[in-house]
Amino acid sequence: AGDRLRVLDQTLLPGKEAYLEFTDYQQVAEAIKTLRIRGAPAIGVAAGYGTVLGASCIESQNFQNFKEELHRVVETLAATRPTARNLFQALERMEGVVDKGRDVGTLKQQLMNEASAIHCEQREADRRLSEYGATLVEADSSIVTHCNTGPLATAGYGTALGIIIEAFNRGRVKIVYPTETRPLCQGARLTTWELKQAGVPFKLITDSMAGYVMRTRNINAVIVGADRIAANGDTANKIGTYSLAVLSREHGIPFYVAAPTTTIDFQTKTGNDIPIEERCQDEVTCYADSAIAPKGTEALNPAFDVTPVRYITAIVTEKGIIKEPAGLQSGLFERLS
Amino acid sequence: AGDRLRVLDQTLLPGKEAYLEFTDYQQVAEAIKTLRIRGAPAIGVAAGYGTVLGASCIESQNFQNFKEELHRVVETLAATRPTARNLFQALERMEGVVDKGRDVGTLKQQLMNEASAIHCEQREADRRLSEYGATLVEADSSIVTHCNTGPLATAGYGTALGIIIEAFNRGRVKIVYPTETRPLCQGARLTTWELKQAGVPFKLITDSMAGYVMRTRNINAVIVGADRIAANGDTANKIGTYSLAVLSREHGIPFYVAAPTTTIDFQTKTGNDIPIEERCQDEVTCYADSAIAPKGTEALNPAFDVTPVRYITAIVTEKGIIKEPAGLQSGLFERLS
Repeated sequence: AGDRLRVLDQTLLPGKEAYLEFTDYQQVAEAIKTLRIRGAPAIGVAAGYGTVLGASCIESQNFQNFKEELHRVVETLAATRPTARNLFQALERMEGVVDKGRDVGTLKQQLMNEASAIHCEQREADRRLSEYGATLVEADSSIVTHCNTGPLATAGYGTALGIIIEAFNRGRVKIVYPTETRPLCQGARLTTWELKQAGVPFKLITDSMAGYVMRTRNINAVIVGADRIAANGDTANKIGTYSLAVLSREHGIPFYVAAPTTTIDFQTKTGNDIPIEERCQDEVTCYADSAIAPKGTEALNPAFDVTPVRYITAIVTEKGIIKEPAGLQSGLFERLS
Repeated sequence: AGDRLRVLDQTLLPGKEAYLEFTDYQQVAEAIKTLRIRGAPAIGVAAGYGTVLGASCIESQNFQNFKEELHRVVETLAATRPTARNLFQALERMEGVVDKGRDVGTLKQQLMNEASAIHCEQREADRRLSEYGATLVEADSSIVTHCNTGPLATAGYGTALGIIIEAFNRGRVKIVYPTETRPLCQGARLTTWELKQAGVPFKLITDSMAGYVMRTRNINAVIVGADRIAANGDTANKIGTYSLAVLSREHGIPFYVAAPTTTIDFQTKTGNDIPIEERCQDEVTCYADSAIAPKGTEALNPAFDVTPVRYITAIVTEKGIIKEPAGLQSGLFERLS
């Protein structure tokens, strides 16, 4: 919005629909850390615009000084969250623009153009992968999904939820079972909100009900997003994804990962090399302002887990569907159909 | 406590330690329905004392009238919750006393004796099964458990948690990972509270972290309780148990069910015949007084799931350990070692 970045505060949903306006890149960094902005693709887009805000506050007209100051902006934005690939991918693009720049004035405009391009390309990638993914959904499907991967998490269309909504619009979805996705309940708070807006029938389940639902409700597919996909196809995604993948295989249900190619990290060989963010224990021991556990209770709080590629039936990207990714010999891209 | 039943209100833990006193069986029925009293063995014990309270309020001295009125008491208590076997087992014992009774005066005392016997036998059964179970725990074990199966859920000793605490006292437990057990968080609220009191080291996890923990933390055993065990060994227990069983098998981790023989229902052939209680959707869409999901969100809320016996490594009872229960030909008891 002109010289400001306007974002929906996701931590207040579904109770309150409030927008934040940022003029400072540090506000953007803080909003990513505190999950006001969340979802791997949305974080990437926000980081692009955050870099633009950072650039606009640099007063020096000396190119070398500008470049150094902007590098600090990028480092601050990069230090917000360690797991999602899209954040780093966006920041690398922004730094690439700086590297090719010559004078400060035109560079500021070029940075804005690049952030805008990241945004548009992301939206277009979502749209295309949703269309590819919808072809995998059988008629009259019951689908389990995890966390939030809809418009809120992306650039306006969605990845896993984009596929589900596209398949619903093609008349193929009977019902969706979104998991609540503890500890922060992105499924209960955000996915339900988006499914309602899209008119898709659903019933919310706790994470613990996934096995029960797969055993008793004829589930046709499990579709999830991704925060980082390693070069061999191992996938980091919201904590609980791995359990869903194991349960899917036990029940013979296809397990699909949906992500733009910007989520694939060719520098990370396998899932073992993906850093997993450990967040504050209070997210587990409290909900909203209520303590769930006795005072002083210690908890684990990994924000993500890694699903080995052998559990993944297909990876859906904007460039096509990678079927049987576990059989990869030489990189994911070559398998795009 | 003389003419009253005194119980700890489990819904207020861990925030508040408050006791309720009941003089009326209908208060007991209500407390079971609303989970102020919960845990299959504890429900059985409470139903015994509830029947005594019901008997004490019947004024008729005519034996036939008394018997009919008491039958209504038993029916009210039986209608509180459908899944746990122990409730029905206790009420059958109480009705057996009535059937053998002759006059109202002595019968009231006999009912009190029977309720007290159920209580003592339950406590003794827990103690014995905890000792049997502790022999299954390897040195330096990391253990995952689900829901609450300690003193609060039983008659003072515990089933799955009784085993864990007994094994800890024998120096064999390194750490316990209790699942929070959504939707009502009995793991986060109650199991943590009991582990603390027993001095056992633990880290709380969300249900969704179970797969991650099994994959990354060298778990030696998963130990859970049971609400009803069918004649073939299929086991109904808190929702989420089935997912844990599947995950255990995938990781080659022994999966133990701990329950007194009063939990075994020889009239129920397989798990398919166990009625699963579906509770109010608000338990999933809200936590404490906070709404988690948008208004009007529909949710599933099965309180239990069924784990087929093929996933169960052993069933631990007060009469011994049933190893490889899936191989049963002719009833569980014959396999007690």
